[in-house]
Amino acid sequence: MVREPATPPGTVRPGGRTARTRTAVRDAVITGLADHGYPGLTVEYVAEHSGVHKTTLYRRWGGVEGLIVDALDLAGEDSWTPPDTGTLEGDLRALATEVTTTFNDPTTAAAPGAFIAAAFQSEHAAQGLHTFYRERFNRCGPLIERAVQRGEAPPGTDAAAVVSAVSAPLFFRLFITREPIDATDAERSALAALAATRAGAFIGSGSTTPTKQQSPAGATPVTD
Amino acid sequence: MVREPATPPGTVRPGGRTARTRTAVRDAVITGLADHGYPGLTVEYVAEHSGVHKTTLYRRWGGVEGLIVDALDLAGEDSWTPPDTGTLEGDLRALATEVTTTFNDPTTAAAPGAFIAAAFQSEHAAQGLHTFYRERFNRCGPLIERAVQRGEAPPGTDAAAVVSAVSAPLFFRLFITREPIDATDAERSALAALAATRAGAFIGSGSTTPTKQQSPAGATPVTD
Repeated sequence: MVREPATPPGTVRPGGRTARTRTAVRDAVITGLADHGYPGLTVEYVAEHSGVHKTTLYRRWGGVEGLIVDALDLAGEDSWTPPDTGTLEGDLRALATEVTTTFNDPTTAAAPGAFIAAAFQSEHAAQGLHTFYRERFNRCGPLIERAVQRGEAPPGTDAAAVVSAVSAPLFFRLFITREPIDATDAERSALAALAATRAGAFIGSGSTTPTKQQSPAGATPVTD
Repeated sequence: MVREPATPPGTVRPGGRTARTRTAVRDAVITGLADHGYPGLTVEYVAEHSGVHKTTLYRRWGGVEGLIVDALDLAGEDSWTPPDTGTLEGDLRALATEVTTTFNDPTTAAAPGAFIAAAFQSEHAAQGLHTFYRERFNRCGPLIERAVQRGEAPPGTDAAAVVSAVSAPLFFRLFITREPIDATDAERSALAALAATRAGAFIGSGSTTPTKQQSPAGATPVTD
């Protein structure tokens, strides 16, 4: 349990009590989302499970929406880097395997699953998720640059499109058609993305991404 | 408003009052899911919005879960057939355009978006969604058979894998990375699936689909 810091926000050194408080709050948010879904997540719940006082949570995070967005921000601040196996095929296989491994282990699947679910009901969560993935895809730029230099992908190939192509069929099974994923799905997904990359299907930046994310179908606020 | 039939279920001719009742109930379920999400959907809401008495709803559908599953069953009973443009490329482009058009029009996006969201919180909805898509993909068998006959796809290509590959990147943007989709995304998705199909990435049936669907991450029941 993390005690509420006696000092105002930002005055404690990085890695100190403020960082520990933020991590404890993030963990409570994820547990709450995983156990009760977005409709069941309350500031009271987070206070109880983080040991941080409710008034502190309101003052620093504003409320449930702010708590979710900050938990996603924190998730995006990790040190993840894309695989570097020496070949594009190896890298795409590693990415697909990582998605499969993450979502087949309940302990690592809980947080992303909870955020994806919350995005259906909270526009703030949807925007946070959008930012999280955009940043993840940006980190994959060097993976494609290396592939282009090795002659494995045509110049101008869009890294975000390739990485999305590897992930999309796996997320589609998990969250749309509701089917399990395994090593066979991961391999198929990687090889399909590889073939499409080689064929030049991902040259160019694709459709323009607006700075203000539009509300897609299904991001329905809970009004009751 | 549809009045409750005076006769027991099944005794009214197809297309008669029983069918109209079922349609009215389905419409109320979709409206409820779209407006309030799964946690806000109650038998009382469906009764009020369908004009069908609450006791009838409980007797015939059992409750909210049964109402959602039947609404999905009804959605799967439509006369949809896959495109038949004369080429595999044309068919895949048409499929991608259909997804894009459906989800960019709020009137047609509401129902699928609501079911996809509900599947995060209801295991019954998740199973209904699984069945719905499985049946949709089965209808696409002839599309791939024609392509194989024309020499556009290798023999043994799995129709469900090809159609999933066309749809997955679009659903991934809409419901995971929370980005809008447009004609450029549809074209990229179709051409990537086409390249992967030609390269033989979708030969074979992929991973085995269990008869009883496993609960994927995120299908968290609302317990409060």
